[in-house]
Amino acid sequence: MKKPFDLTFSVGPTQISQVVKDDIAHAVANNFLSVSHRGEDFTQISEMTVNALRQLYNVPEDYRIFFTTSATEGWEICARNLVEKEAFSFVCGHFSSAFAHCLNSWGKTCHEDVAPWGELNDHLNVDIPQTAELITLCHNETSTGVTVPDDTIQKLRQKYSDCLLAIDVTSSIGACNLDINQADVWYFSTQKGWGLPSGLGVMFVGPRAMAKSKAMLSKHLPQGFFNFTNMEKQMADGKYQTIQTPNILNIYLLGQQCKRLQQTGLQNVHNKTLVRASDLYNFFESHPNAKPFVEDPTVRSPFSLCIELGEENLTHYKQKASQQKIELGSGYGKLKKTHIRIANYPALTDTDFEILKEIFES
Amino acid sequence: MKKPFDLTFSVGPTQISQVVKDDIAHAVANNFLSVSHRGEDFTQISEMTVNALRQLYNVPEDYRIFFTTSATEGWEICARNLVEKEAFSFVCGHFSSAFAHCLNSWGKTCHEDVAPWGELNDHLNVDIPQTAELITLCHNETSTGVTVPDDTIQKLRQKYSDCLLAIDVTSSIGACNLDINQADVWYFSTQKGWGLPSGLGVMFVGPRAMAKSKAMLSKHLPQGFFNFTNMEKQMADGKYQTIQTPNILNIYLLGQQCKRLQQTGLQNVHNKTLVRASDLYNFFESHPNAKPFVEDPTVRSPFSLCIELGEENLTHYKQKASQQKIELGSGYGKLKKTHIRIANYPALTDTDFEILKEIFES
Repeated sequence: MKKPFDLTFSVGPTQISQVVKDDIAHAVANNFLSVSHRGEDFTQISEMTVNALRQLYNVPEDYRIFFTTSATEGWEICARNLVEKEAFSFVCGHFSSAFAHCLNSWGKTCHEDVAPWGELNDHLNVDIPQTAELITLCHNETSTGVTVPDDTIQKLRQKYSDCLLAIDVTSSIGACNLDINQADVWYFSTQKGWGLPSGLGVMFVGPRAMAKSKAMLSKHLPQGFFNFTNMEKQMADGKYQTIQTPNILNIYLLGQQCKRLQQTGLQNVHNKTLVRASDLYNFFESHPNAKPFVEDPTVRSPFSLCIELGEENLTHYKQKASQQKIELGSGYGKLKKTHIRIANYPALTDTDFEILKEIFES
Repeated sequence: MKKPFDLTFSVGPTQISQVVKDDIAHAVANNFLSVSHRGEDFTQISEMTVNALRQLYNVPEDYRIFFTTSATEGWEICARNLVEKEAFSFVCGHFSSAFAHCLNSWGKTCHEDVAPWGELNDHLNVDIPQTAELITLCHNETSTGVTVPDDTIQKLRQKYSDCLLAIDVTSSIGACNLDINQADVWYFSTQKGWGLPSGLGVMFVGPRAMAKSKAMLSKHLPQGFFNFTNMEKQMADGKYQTIQTPNILNIYLLGQQCKRLQQTGLQNVHNKTLVRASDLYNFFESHPNAKPFVEDPTVRSPFSLCIELGEENLTHYKQKASQQKIELGSGYGKLKKTHIRIANYPALTDTDFEILKEIFES
């Protein structure tokens, strides 16, 4: 296969920076990919990454950090470990909706509050049934380009303090700060904000979620091998291991990436994301042929911008980009032929965004 | 972390050859890791690998090929998709036993025939209850170093032709030929015989297994997102996609590896494995301080040799190897301090095995 592009603004898998490419070369040359997942060398890599994640995101001591294989597996594990009968999902696009479908596929009832595409739910003015054991939301809904503001999460947490809360941060973490205390479970994969290859997921699991899973196990509600108790056992006693043979390369890369973000300062990374997003939204708002899909500026995603172009303009700009070996991400689902999505992650440089703007300047 | 070794005989993750390292560099340099898993570039990679696998292993047209994340996920998916109530497992060590535990963790009954460590089950002289919906076996049990002979699988298939049969080939495929018609499901991961990094699994699923999964779905027995119907839907219509964002790097690498094995000829690869294994067993049988753990030569694994050394000798040879930056794989579980395991996979060269023998020559 030919090289598909030199630069991609796709929202995931995303552009991978040269420094990550160098990390891959280092891991390969030093045989990190051949270490036994039950031996000390793996433990050293895994411990480094767990500690780096914990430090970077201030993950509280009583939250467990688990390696999974994808955010999709995050849905699966939450559905099996945390919900006996009923859950509640805020749905505002494909990915938030998928969690609800996943719960259904496990035979659980999922109540939903559904916002129209391009809008965000009114989280604090919704009746969540008291029977709901888990509330789920997607921090950044990449299919439409809306993001839940931090203070909404905080207020939701206060209002429903007795209910478990699980937040999908697949397309925001690595590009923003988060207050981990504000939810019981956070889960994500590595091919978006982190700017790493696909094939690794992570979960932060708080004490109330651990307890719920244990309680379900003691009632003999089958959760399979990947129950939190089993997962914790593999990580415990300084082993830092996983049930399955994990994606060792990505675990190593994630640790290295955390260390770099730590040096830059996570709040600096977050601020840069916001400044760039603001600049890009201004650019597209004043553009004659384009406009942001999300009308309300307060819920527009700083991480994955969805821009309406119409079919003709989309073809024009995509072709123009393609001539420069640049890929513009397609709109999701029904927006595919009329919208583009633009990733705004740390792996992309300021120069990359200057090049992007030039494409849209004629 | 320092480079842990220059050469490893560990049974998995295993030594990765220079040609695979070159493939990784090629994929990285050409941005294959940044292609969208819902776009044409990914489809091209995935289709190439599916076709190469199908050709290499003569996978019948009516068998589906699915990408998973590990062989552990293979157990999970079989337990959920193929067993309503009861299964039967041939257990002869840790990995064959784990499938039985996995079935239990899903609340299913698993009848077991258990062979002592170092021995193989007498597959054809066991009473398998008629209520068993699935028979499971592990082609090569790496924890002890026994392999089920091909004609045993064939006879078992004939004897229980009405029952589904699932075979774990994690530590043999890539180093041997297989007759895919002899079972309904074959599953494996890529970090052993294939000589690739960890983090990818594959399943070959035949028509009777597809039908069983569909029948269970229609009875509303929850299988979660990863039911065969969903998995097939993602692969269908020329999409070759997966439910989750997959490990794109490994899918690419697996396809390249298949093409190389195709050029060498799979039977040639298999024969070479057998010749080398025979030579190694002869070497250790005539060695004053070592002997093969498995007494019966007809069931000794050609893929992962388990060699008894005793604690003192083990320390001596491991240290000697370590001085040359060579790693000898540890025995599994209770054999850890007294036995080593030696991988015999295509990624290791004849020269590597000469070096291995030299370690044991003084």
